[in-house]
Amino acid sequence: MTEKEIEIYYNTVLDIVSLAGKVVNAGFSAAKRIETKASAADLVTEFDQRVEEILIKHLQEKFPTHKFIGEESSSAGVQTVFGDDPTWIIDPIDGTTNFVHGFPFVAISIALAINKQVVIGVIYNPVLDLLYTAIHGKGAYRNGRPIKSSGQTDLALSQVAGEYGSSREPEVLTAKCQNLRVIIEKVHSIRAIGSAAMNLCLVAEGSCDAYFEYGIHIWDYAAGDLIAREAGAYTCDPSGGPLNLLHRCILCTATKKLAEQISPLLTHVNFPDD
Amino acid sequence: MTEKEIEIYYNTVLDIVSLAGKVVNAGFSAAKRIETKASAADLVTEFDQRVEEILIKHLQEKFPTHKFIGEESSSAGVQTVFGDDPTWIIDPIDGTTNFVHGFPFVAISIALAINKQVVIGVIYNPVLDLLYTAIHGKGAYRNGRPIKSSGQTDLALSQVAGEYGSSREPEVLTAKCQNLRVIIEKVHSIRAIGSAAMNLCLVAEGSCDAYFEYGIHIWDYAAGDLIAREAGAYTCDPSGGPLNLLHRCILCTATKKLAEQISPLLTHVNFPDD
Repeated sequence: MTEKEIEIYYNTVLDIVSLAGKVVNAGFSAAKRIETKASAADLVTEFDQRVEEILIKHLQEKFPTHKFIGEESSSAGVQTVFGDDPTWIIDPIDGTTNFVHGFPFVAISIALAINKQVVIGVIYNPVLDLLYTAIHGKGAYRNGRPIKSSGQTDLALSQVAGEYGSSREPEVLTAKCQNLRVIIEKVHSIRAIGSAAMNLCLVAEGSCDAYFEYGIHIWDYAAGDLIAREAGAYTCDPSGGPLNLLHRCILCTATKKLAEQISPLLTHVNFPDD
Repeated sequence: MTEKEIEIYYNTVLDIVSLAGKVVNAGFSAAKRIETKASAADLVTEFDQRVEEILIKHLQEKFPTHKFIGEESSSAGVQTVFGDDPTWIIDPIDGTTNFVHGFPFVAISIALAINKQVVIGVIYNPVLDLLYTAIHGKGAYRNGRPIKSSGQTDLALSQVAGEYGSSREPEVLTAKCQNLRVIIEKVHSIRAIGSAAMNLCLVAEGSCDAYFEYGIHIWDYAAGDLIAREAGAYTCDPSGGPLNLLHRCILCTATKKLAEQISPLLTHVNFPDD
């Protein structure tokens, strides 16, 4: 894959994301017809489906040989196939619960993976007009300006993003609450804004020093992982091993040193792979 | 107190808050010299002190007979006296930890109480340029446009703001984590943005349906309580009794029905009165 080709993909996806952002914005304050998915906490609106359709339709027109992994397609029963072909990994609205409640942390998240390596990451919050972008090896940007993670190495001085997520299984909640309890004892503060993609951007820009979550999907963190790493942050499996985009969990920290302090504190929660 | 007088107070405080907001903004991205207060999680910067001085100085010039309760004055040992005289209750930067980390949920919170009743509430987030205002009996506004709470009555459909706060006392953390665990089982979602004043504004504008917190101070919730109530929300002591501005806790909900579902679930935490 040449640099030139990557640039074409990048410019094309930015145009399409901008278009999709208008649809997200139009729906944000409007009344929304809600269906329930896996649980009452995991909402999907007509806008998720509509935005994913727009994104896939336009990308498919431009790049007919490319493959797609999309949150809504997966919910509708399409099997996640993550192979070597250029593959667009799409979350049309990360933070659907926020969207439904009118809380402005919602984002379109798109990654392009080639040979299973993410080369482009784009996260766009159209409500707050925040566009986070990264191309592999070329740094991370917010609205075109370079961003850097905080460089924090001391857990005691860290602000951590930590979520409850959408599962209401008692064992999952017990492990998550246990993790949050162990972490809060040792840090400045925990924040929860309800969007995995936006949380990774918070670490990328240095507003948070760490973020961990179990139970998320490839479309929630593929783009954010690249953006965070390109901003100087470190990402891994919460158990300490290398990050796997299908393993449904991430630990993202300003520095490796911080990950080494957090990982041993966590009770690990296993979800079936994507 | 005539309506005319209230209007003069209101217009004056808006001018002064706008001025103070510029100082907050100037410091937000700058490097900040940090001192620790009660614990490592409870930070105070030179900006807190500077902003409080500006607010009190200008209000005192205009209204020399008025009294003041300010977060930084209290930290410096000034006794909180909450009497019948017109009293400005000031938090120069609610969300100091956010301020230090560059997370944009920071707010100047000012209430004017007369005969111990809050008649004016102003919360200004200068980073996001969000100005929430209320005068008793005249509704609540965001940047001049009326806001309304969500009207939600069903806990299962609610988004709740719930914080860990700054205390790291094990018993306090245990009770808080217990409360968050009990609530997360029953609701859509929990969010934590780290500012009591902003959380009350989230309920006021309907982005969250409820917010509860123990351990906060009068300057954290005096203005937000009025703004939330003027937006149609309900506020009370988390135990279910009437709200007391000195009791260091609040339960704020879109509807009384929601408060009646939440209150019995909570483990109540007592802090010494302000």
